[in-house]
Amino acid sequence: MLQPELKMRRDKIRALMVPLGIDAALITCNVNLIYTLGEVVSGYLYLPLDAPARLFLKRPNTVKGEFVYPIRKPEELPELIEESGLPLPKMLMLEGDELSYGEYMRLATCFPAETEVVSMGTMLIRQARSVKTPFEVEMFRRSGVAHAQAYSHIPEVYRRGMTDRELSIEIERLMRQEGCLGLFRVYGRSMEIFMGSLLAGENAATPSPYDFALGGAGIDPSLPGGVNGEVLKEGQSFMVDMGGNFFGYLSDMSRVYSIGKLPQEAYEAHQVCLQIQQAIEAQAKPGTVCEDLYNLAIELVGKTGFGDYFMGVSQKAKFIGHGVGLEINEAPVLAPRIKRELQEGMVFALEPKIVLPGIGPVGIENTWVVTAEGIEKLTPAPEEICEL
Amino acid sequence: MLQPELKMRRDKIRALMVPLGIDAALITCNVNLIYTLGEVVSGYLYLPLDAPARLFLKRPNTVKGEFVYPIRKPEELPELIEESGLPLPKMLMLEGDELSYGEYMRLATCFPAETEVVSMGTMLIRQARSVKTPFEVEMFRRSGVAHAQAYSHIPEVYRRGMTDRELSIEIERLMRQEGCLGLFRVYGRSMEIFMGSLLAGENAATPSPYDFALGGAGIDPSLPGGVNGEVLKEGQSFMVDMGGNFFGYLSDMSRVYSIGKLPQEAYEAHQVCLQIQQAIEAQAKPGTVCEDLYNLAIELVGKTGFGDYFMGVSQKAKFIGHGVGLEINEAPVLAPRIKRELQEGMVFALEPKIVLPGIGPVGIENTWVVTAEGIEKLTPAPEEICEL
Repeated sequence: MLQPELKMRRDKIRALMVPLGIDAALITCNVNLIYTLGEVVSGYLYLPLDAPARLFLKRPNTVKGEFVYPIRKPEELPELIEESGLPLPKMLMLEGDELSYGEYMRLATCFPAETEVVSMGTMLIRQARSVKTPFEVEMFRRSGVAHAQAYSHIPEVYRRGMTDRELSIEIERLMRQEGCLGLFRVYGRSMEIFMGSLLAGENAATPSPYDFALGGAGIDPSLPGGVNGEVLKEGQSFMVDMGGNFFGYLSDMSRVYSIGKLPQEAYEAHQVCLQIQQAIEAQAKPGTVCEDLYNLAIELVGKTGFGDYFMGVSQKAKFIGHGVGLEINEAPVLAPRIKRELQEGMVFALEPKIVLPGIGPVGIENTWVVTAEGIEKLTPAPEEICEL
Repeated sequence: MLQPELKMRRDKIRALMVPLGIDAALITCNVNLIYTLGEVVSGYLYLPLDAPARLFLKRPNTVKGEFVYPIRKPEELPELIEESGLPLPKMLMLEGDELSYGEYMRLATCFPAETEVVSMGTMLIRQARSVKTPFEVEMFRRSGVAHAQAYSHIPEVYRRGMTDRELSIEIERLMRQEGCLGLFRVYGRSMEIFMGSLLAGENAATPSPYDFALGGAGIDPSLPGGVNGEVLKEGQSFMVDMGGNFFGYLSDMSRVYSIGKLPQEAYEAHQVCLQIQQAIEAQAKPGTVCEDLYNLAIELVGKTGFGDYFMGVSQKAKFIGHGVGLEINEAPVLAPRIKRELQEGMVFALEPKIVLPGIGPVGIENTWVVTAEGIEKLTPAPEEICEL
């Protein structure tokens, strides 16, 4: 990756450190290394306020550069920082919500008592990451096209009598063939997903351990959520919602398919979701408050008969959109009580969805970027229910 | 899962707590919930020494039971523990090497000062998990058969002129069709792998950020390791090494394929690896010291001309085997300075591998269980190089 791009990202983090009196960050978690270094390595990126970053590297032994220094264990950090020509930091920030307690304590105790160690690295770097650079938006733009291309082949791989699981395997393959790296990165230790989900019929309403509109029973209790292995049946809808990790950035996109025709209410509910998307598209721009968009969706669906089925049935998701980036769940979240304002460069998934008992899920999900004037769709694909 | 199985596992953890004076564990990380509860939920399993475990549950709302209590946030834990009829613990163990620093501190500060909070939950539960129950061994046995079944179809999906990436996609599909859940669970935050790897020719020798015998350049710097997109060429070997997560337990198995014939030295090197496997099979039994098996492998390969290429070329893996379980990297590790003895019920992958410059990787990997008399192979499949 080009150095000016990396410098811009590092400077965004530095700008957030200054008002807190933090004079250096130690970065070692994979997504934050991708963000600040452009690649995953085993090692530590040391980011001081007023000097170029240093990379203290364990592996691979092929990474070279002006400010790259070999390291064997974190206890060597203070000495190596000084040997690289820098003073020890007065206030050092670690990735406190990503490092394990054990690793955090080990890193913190490497430094002498004069260095105050603080834990807000995760929070600040996530804040920096929530507003994408033009380069990052371009990665999303390319992901969106590849993601849409993969979905365009879904009608070709469907065969009557397939189970949801069999079809999901074919869609995973389509995603991989378009270049999807497969890995589905999530912030936080609890949410585990393999590539994404296909949720059909009643299974879509099965609650999962996670804050999703659609859950699914899954195949094995060790990995709840997703397909349950049942045959896709006439009159059922299903929703495909895969993570589009083509270049590290997770485009998020859902489309609905039907086996034959659906009852009329399904088409009506689908239109309600499209109208909510349209209303939010018309309102969202820099300065829009996140919770206002959530409230707008709730207000609109409340005027229809579908409120009880919006964003899930017995267990509902408490948001209608979420930031995406190197992880599927970044800031901002379009949810109640979120006062944060949209900013140009934010990228988020907007997913008004309705789960109809006896039929299945309908609705839409696209990835959007906040522009100077409004928001722009990055996942271009037909949005009506696709009949198979 | 049956209650006696879960009770046996919980009692294994309790037995490790007693000598340390720990009178309760709070378990909330997914793999440890699978181990002690049989499924992934969002919530906390509270495991006291002398009473049945309590489940404090956020989601899904479908889990019911005698000792299941709803919870909204961790700050409610002390009150809910007392309401469930239990005293607050004197010494409480948390999963200190899996919880983030932020989450650990939040949980620890929920409890009053009279409760001493200690961080060795991860260590103790991993120790309990390192010796499998008969039920867990049976899961591995079934995984091994499905894993072998998937590999048996590899010759059918190979087509001349394919890239390593294209073939990998087809093998991933074979694994999924046999029931693989796809998710590849790794202990620790740094190692990220999508399903496993296919490593061909020179790419197998490319160092990665991880302690692997075979690295690979990968397709994108955000996910190093694995295929690099080159066409598979005549005279090259490649190794398939996928994670066999069929029932939560990761069977580990590698097999070697060749495009046409390989130079004679490749077949010789492959036999060296099979002989190392055979020698270790003959020696390993309960009581065998882990490092002795590593040293045996190094001694044997040292008598051949392949020492420089054993377990990698410019960056070598420092082990020849590793425990497997709910995660791909469990105890024990067959590596230098590991004095731990094998115990009946331990399950490990043994992977003597050689990477030949200009040809590619050869060698073998199987998953083994330690029995009363020796070790038994759980991944039954032909072991010679398979010519395509």
